[in-house]
Amino acid sequence: MVKINLKSKIREVPDFPKKGILFYDITTLLKDPKGLKSTIDEMYNLVKGKKIDKVVAIESRGFIFAVPLALKLGAGFVLVRKPGKLPAETISEAYTLEYGSNTLEMHKDAIEEGESVLIIDDLLATGGTMAAAINLVEKRGGEVKSVLCLVELTFLKGRDLLKGYDVQSLITYDK
Amino acid sequence: MVKINLKSKIREVPDFPKKGILFYDITTLLKDPKGLKSTIDEMYNLVKGKKIDKVVAIESRGFIFAVPLALKLGAGFVLVRKPGKLPAETISEAYTLEYGSNTLEMHKDAIEEGESVLIIDDLLATGGTMAAAINLVEKRGGEVKSVLCLVELTFLKGRDLLKGYDVQSLITYDK
Repeated sequence: MVKINLKSKIREVPDFPKKGILFYDITTLLKDPKGLKSTIDEMYNLVKGKKIDKVVAIESRGFIFAVPLALKLGAGFVLVRKPGKLPAETISEAYTLEYGSNTLEMHKDAIEEGESVLIIDDLLATGGTMAAAINLVEKRGGEVKSVLCLVELTFLKGRDLLKGYDVQSLITYDK
Repeated sequence: MVKINLKSKIREVPDFPKKGILFYDITTLLKDPKGLKSTIDEMYNLVKGKKIDKVVAIESRGFIFAVPLALKLGAGFVLVRKPGKLPAETISEAYTLEYGSNTLEMHKDAIEEGESVLIIDDLLATGGTMAAAINLVEKRGGEVKSVLCLVELTFLKGRDLLKGYDVQSLITYDK
């Protein structure tokens, strides 16, 4: 199997979503069949062998990677969503952003006490979103065995907020 | 392999998102490892053997099913999103809802002329969202070979809007 340079397939878009931000656009990687397969294979390599009951993904780009990994791990799939989108009883977790704050929700019955959990998102930036997702899982008694992101912006030091957790990413940018 | 009754794992939530609406909650199906695997296997059975270049999914629950199917079909994955979320040059398509209207966007370079496309969403209701996604693909010269949804609310007659297309769903509700 030829290993693909995943980073070379990510498009860099300046000034998105606002001026001065360089956006790493993964859609150019995902639309390529070989890029897509390699992405999922390499993400799986980072977590294979772990005993995982639930793969938890953060809306909405986290959803992209969660199900293929859940299938390979024999796990179920759990959605963490923005407020008001989950129909049954939820728990919620607020977190602060550079300006203002956000809230994430998860169904109360999504995780059972003692379950082993892998949390997935597309991007690790400041770590605030991921920390909120970890809190949701732990509130329900889940054990966060692993945190996995496709892209990590290391210069934003998101790992500092996630100390003590097994945090992995496939592609890193240091500026 | 024991066949699972997928419908029995879907939770019915009354009065969501508003009074009088019965919401079919697929999260209870997806969190179950066997339910998740059967869902993807059965969706794949509906499209296997087709030559598909791109699997297009509609934000955000469409994303859940698209990548495992794209991997099995050897296709790439394309995102159709709400306005302002895709960073590069997009095309857009407005469509009407019961009250007001919505818009969907797709990257201009997501589909090449003549590519064979499978479009996926979680739900087929009135068909408006799916019709808009079909228009986006066709504007770029893609050929919509198949439309696949997990749940179809047959009483909303979404298929009437999608005449001439190969439309399939796994689970139907007639009220």
